[in-house]
Amino acid sequence: MHIKKIPALMLMTALCSSPFTLKAQDHPSLILNKNSVEKIRNNLGETPLFDATLQRVKQEVDAEIAMGIDTPIPKDFSGGYTHYRHKQNFIIAQKAGVLYQILQDEKYAIYIRDMLMQYEAMYKNLPLHPQERSYSRGKLFWQCLNDSNWLVYMSQAYDTIYNFLSEQERNKLENNLFRPFADFISLENPAFYNRVHNHSTWGNAAVGMIGLVMNDEELIQRALYGIEDDGLPLGSYDNDGGIIKVEGQRKGFLANLEEPFSPDGYYTEGPYYQRYAMYPFLIFALAMENARPDLKVLQHKDNVLLKAVDALLNLSDADGEFFPLNDGQKGMSYYTASLVTAVNIAYHYGEQNPKLLSIAQKQNQVLLDESGLDVAIGIREGKAKPYTKKSVNLTDGINGKQGGVGVLRYGNEDLTLVFKYAAQGLSHGHYDKLSYSLYEKGDEIIQDYGLARFVNIGQKGGGNYLKENKTWAKTTIAHNTLSQDGEMHFKGKYSVASTKHSDLYFFDADKEDVQVVSATEAAAYPGTEMHRTMALIKDEHFEKAFMLDIMKVSADKKHDYDFPFYYMGQVIDGNFKWESPKSLSPLGNKNGYQHLYLEGKGKPAGANTQFSWLHEGKFYTLTSATTQADELLLTRIGANDPQFNLRRDAGIVIRRKDTADTTFVSIIEPHGSYSPVSEASLNSSSNIKEVSVELDTAQYTAVKIVDLDDNEQWFILANKNASNTAKHSLTINKKTYRWVGPYLYQ
Amino acid sequence: MHIKKIPALMLMTALCSSPFTLKAQDHPSLILNKNSVEKIRNNLGETPLFDATLQRVKQEVDAEIAMGIDTPIPKDFSGGYTHYRHKQNFIIAQKAGVLYQILQDEKYAIYIRDMLMQYEAMYKNLPLHPQERSYSRGKLFWQCLNDSNWLVYMSQAYDTIYNFLSEQERNKLENNLFRPFADFISLENPAFYNRVHNHSTWGNAAVGMIGLVMNDEELIQRALYGIEDDGLPLGSYDNDGGIIKVEGQRKGFLANLEEPFSPDGYYTEGPYYQRYAMYPFLIFALAMENARPDLKVLQHKDNVLLKAVDALLNLSDADGEFFPLNDGQKGMSYYTASLVTAVNIAYHYGEQNPKLLSIAQKQNQVLLDESGLDVAIGIREGKAKPYTKKSVNLTDGINGKQGGVGVLRYGNEDLTLVFKYAAQGLSHGHYDKLSYSLYEKGDEIIQDYGLARFVNIGQKGGGNYLKENKTWAKTTIAHNTLSQDGEMHFKGKYSVASTKHSDLYFFDADKEDVQVVSATEAAAYPGTEMHRTMALIKDEHFEKAFMLDIMKVSADKKHDYDFPFYYMGQVIDGNFKWESPKSLSPLGNKNGYQHLYLEGKGKPAGANTQFSWLHEGKFYTLTSATTQADELLLTRIGANDPQFNLRRDAGIVIRRKDTADTTFVSIIEPHGSYSPVSEASLNSSSNIKEVSVELDTAQYTAVKIVDLDDNEQWFILANKNASNTAKHSLTINKKTYRWVGPYLYQ
Repeated sequence: MHIKKIPALMLMTALCSSPFTLKAQDHPSLILNKNSVEKIRNNLGETPLFDATLQRVKQEVDAEIAMGIDTPIPKDFSGGYTHYRHKQNFIIAQKAGVLYQILQDEKYAIYIRDMLMQYEAMYKNLPLHPQERSYSRGKLFWQCLNDSNWLVYMSQAYDTIYNFLSEQERNKLENNLFRPFADFISLENPAFYNRVHNHSTWGNAAVGMIGLVMNDEELIQRALYGIEDDGLPLGSYDNDGGIIKVEGQRKGFLANLEEPFSPDGYYTEGPYYQRYAMYPFLIFALAMENARPDLKVLQHKDNVLLKAVDALLNLSDADGEFFPLNDGQKGMSYYTASLVTAVNIAYHYGEQNPKLLSIAQKQNQVLLDESGLDVAIGIREGKAKPYTKKSVNLTDGINGKQGGVGVLRYGNEDLTLVFKYAAQGLSHGHYDKLSYSLYEKGDEIIQDYGLARFVNIGQKGGGNYLKENKTWAKTTIAHNTLSQDGEMHFKGKYSVASTKHSDLYFFDADKEDVQVVSATEAAAYPGTEMHRTMALIKDEHFEKAFMLDIMKVSADKKHDYDFPFYYMGQVIDGNFKWESPKSLSPLGNKNGYQHLYLEGKGKPAGANTQFSWLHEGKFYTLTSATTQADELLLTRIGANDPQFNLRRDAGIVIRRKDTADTTFVSIIEPHGSYSPVSEASLNSSSNIKEVSVELDTAQYTAVKIVDLDDNEQWFILANKNASNTAKHSLTINKKTYRWVGPYLYQ
Repeated sequence: MHIKKIPALMLMTALCSSPFTLKAQDHPSLILNKNSVEKIRNNLGETPLFDATLQRVKQEVDAEIAMGIDTPIPKDFSGGYTHYRHKQNFIIAQKAGVLYQILQDEKYAIYIRDMLMQYEAMYKNLPLHPQERSYSRGKLFWQCLNDSNWLVYMSQAYDTIYNFLSEQERNKLENNLFRPFADFISLENPAFYNRVHNHSTWGNAAVGMIGLVMNDEELIQRALYGIEDDGLPLGSYDNDGGIIKVEGQRKGFLANLEEPFSPDGYYTEGPYYQRYAMYPFLIFALAMENARPDLKVLQHKDNVLLKAVDALLNLSDADGEFFPLNDGQKGMSYYTASLVTAVNIAYHYGEQNPKLLSIAQKQNQVLLDESGLDVAIGIREGKAKPYTKKSVNLTDGINGKQGGVGVLRYGNEDLTLVFKYAAQGLSHGHYDKLSYSLYEKGDEIIQDYGLARFVNIGQKGGGNYLKENKTWAKTTIAHNTLSQDGEMHFKGKYSVASTKHSDLYFFDADKEDVQVVSATEAAAYPGTEMHRTMALIKDEHFEKAFMLDIMKVSADKKHDYDFPFYYMGQVIDGNFKWESPKSLSPLGNKNGYQHLYLEGKGKPAGANTQFSWLHEGKFYTLTSATTQADELLLTRIGANDPQFNLRRDAGIVIRRKDTADTTFVSIIEPHGSYSPVSEASLNSSSNIKEVSVELDTAQYTAVKIVDLDDNEQWFILANKNASNTAKHSLTINKKTYRWVGPYLYQ
């Protein structure tokens, strides 16, 4: 049953008496409306950033119009021409629609109409896309996901020219293109449509957007609440390894809005996919706000969408690039189009935070709608303030109780620690409990590898995920965390991992000079508990802030541990001897180890291991408390990678064999600088003489740091009581230390 | 005999009657003088760039003065504290002297005086520097070279406070410090002082500078003409592998000015050392211009020093970084201090080229002397014009007859080819006849490795040349040129190489769309002649300009050839299959091959081999006409490099075995773009269907390039007649091609 039929008939009746007035009231109504268009037109020529954006968009669209319309028969994966062309079509059509409204030049409406008519002619008889890799193949694209992208944008284009089209044209498009299209990505692809997953979010938004334009209540309901009875079996996996249906699974846009977002606005898949999902989330919520403000979709879950924009901005480095947690492509940043949408909407519909204006200034473009105009006016009026990123702890999980991500920042992002103690992150999650990455400004010091994929580059596996994403990028040894017995966390089983999460022990960023985050993980390796505490410390005796890392491992039997550091840069020095094999061989044969070459192997020279490197003109030293029995492995990514899908990046691994309980204590110390222009090498050596574990019990772990001038610093951690008010007293070497709260630094 | 004695006595007599007038006339006289100081003082506050530089220098010097003077007992190599401190001392003292003159604040004079007195107290009894690596150990530093740096700067500092000091103080400094210092680096170190080498240039300038200040004619003569009878044996090598004395060798500053510079201003060691040598060349020439204009040192050899500044600027990429020909550290650029000197002096004493002002603007600082003031005034008056770099052919050798370096540039440095057909380049030369590197703007497409050294980073071999400089960086296989039978050019023998050079066949950059440089090399592999022709071509059927490379090899017997391409970036695709070994082994055991891992090995799939990569968001494809018998080797630098002194960069090598005459024809084609922000992958595939050698005789080589739309382009080269007026006619496949000049492109 199509509920829409009734209003449509009513509309047709109405048309007989007053055709243009009523039409004008109705459309556009999705993103733009009559009032906002009028406001925009009144401000033309007076708002520099809006005008500049308009000019750029006009140039872009005009160039495409000059090239003519092409709607090729679908053929290619995401790196190929037909994929690119159809994607470009919907992007340009949406922009052309906005130009039609703002500039009132019919050439834009004609362009959209003609393009849509070509699609209408093609779509009727279009089979499934010939590429068969996807669990839910689309028609225009190789997966329904991209078909949904198309509909989200084309709905907006259609809305803007709705009144330009004749009734007959509209009926043709709706009956032969839009409704079948919406049904195809939903009713005919429930495995794609009816999940809690970024794929479904796009699908839901697409169906909802076109439903709003067509005023089709059934589609709107299907968008918000999913398909009631999808007939899908429980279990079965998509081609990213995600489970398609689990017991009691919710569905539809509101479920997708609720479940993956924590109350803090953290999206469980990680920032790369959050950035991707933000567009359909926000654009459909905005359309609902415009068309059905009573449903309060934009305000759903205590304004979680607006909070999510702030969370996402906070999950970027000093250059605005998102931390590549889970599957994340490096280089993706808040300069991407969906973040323009996010920032503009968050400003306009949120609390007009002037700090968002400085991000918009950097983006140097705005949305061509009321929110974008509002941002441009704010900037024009000099309201922008710097978006200074602070330390932040973001919970994960629907109720914020499934771990989280802690970001510690010292100074103006001079040193940034990203500590992941989250849930699995759905099918794009990596097996890297309690792992981290470390940045100096926008430069990686200790990297998170990110994904193994060349998005949209056709020659590389069609631009899709490469098999090395599973065999390397998702594995535990690919991350800066503990590997046990050469195994992955949860043995790499998604079905187990997706039910577990790490737990926060405490997060304390109140004092800028000593900021600490601490969390535990008990399920990744059954029988073994990991408790990792990471601190950024700025000590007066050190030139720059450093990172302290305490990984306390409690195991019910003996294991072999590997503890890697994926440092970025070129080796400067080490305080231990290593042997370099004549030929390089893989470090293992599975679980990611098969991709690591062993470039060097040594033993600690004493109680401390030091290793330093140079990167982007800055020096770094790792100092770790090691034992005589430890092995030190120098590794390089690239074994068993004949197609060069992986970067040839380096690592150093502390290997500790045949051990039950143990604690890895390490410092990453940035220092000095080097300039190839002045050739000045400043402070190129570590300031640390010694790091030692002076006491390590179930209750307390005490670390002593001695610098080259013999100044002693102590970091003592209460392992079992994170209360801020708990009083502690501990005697070590006849000296008694007293403090309140989970740690002491002095 | 000290000629100076006489004027000194005269001066002392004069002092009795009119002590201050005469003094004031005399000093400063080296770089600043009374008139220029007055001019500068009159312009204070009115010339923004000069004022800003002055302010910055004042802050820097004031901070050093606040820290106090330290003249530690010499101990360290260039990466260590004592080296750094003494270097910083002379740099700051020179600046303090300028500040004293301009600001007339005695605290700067006192600072210099006290520092010099500390040196005087120390120097008297100072033994040779304890580090024994140099062939000519210094006293303050590990090599005389750095001691000479010290004296060049300290002479200027001394000149500025000459009148501030008492006669007694001056005598003390001159007798106990300056004259012994000058004698030490010259008379006591003839092997350092009496060569044609950048070391000697510094030594000569140092002796000359202090000679001018002290008005010591003997020192001035020794500077200009060297030591008459140095008693050195012929032969013997310095620790860079350079020969110290050859038969009939000239010496002294003027010889150093004549021999290493070609008439075009190319310095035979390459731009990295030219940049280093420019400072003593220019500062001493300037001092001579001020003190002895009649000798016309600054104008010597038809203004070669001023031409050299232009040559050096032209040997930089779009970011201003010098091409790392021979031993060159990447990243060194025209932002370095010696280029501020060079640009300022070239502007002021040359023809006030307004393009130099735009470089000065980028440098954002000027010299604090009359030339710097002149530059700052020019900028203030809006005279600056863009320094647009064009294609340029720079001859090498004293008379410009020892080969050269051709730089072809398309567009605004969109594509830059650096083709080296020069002489050996003294002891810093590499064994890389007819090699090249290729840039897109400031990004390397095909790299020249540069040197193997971490200049001034103490942990890396004291900051000095690493042994991998000889075992890798200088070798032939480390470069983009032909290796024969696994041997180095000239078998790596400097004594042979230094007597040879390649020869230009022709250089033609008249037409922007087809620019060609061609040269021959007959001595590198006796019995084998290489003739390499390289062109930048912008064809209407191609998105961007590409590089065509024709390496024609004529050999009197069969050899095995290796022809490498050190591409920068990550592999995207190849049109051939390759096998990847389970373990990586070195490609050979000597001549640089021991540092290459073999990562993959394959055979051409057809008559063309294509291989593409992605770098900095741009795609590149190599297309080469290969034979079925060829082997294709994928290599990575890093074997036998236990200390990680080398970068892990990639290469692809075409190996052609058991062949006498052969021609390697290849195209490097930049195309498309990729953005991790928009994730748009544009034009990621080559536009070339086929490259073929249609005819290859002693007289002609004809190459056909067919694009994907079957457009044919022909490049036909006349191999034996480079005359611009020669008429050629050639019939291939029944079609006759007629043209005038050395090549046809159609």
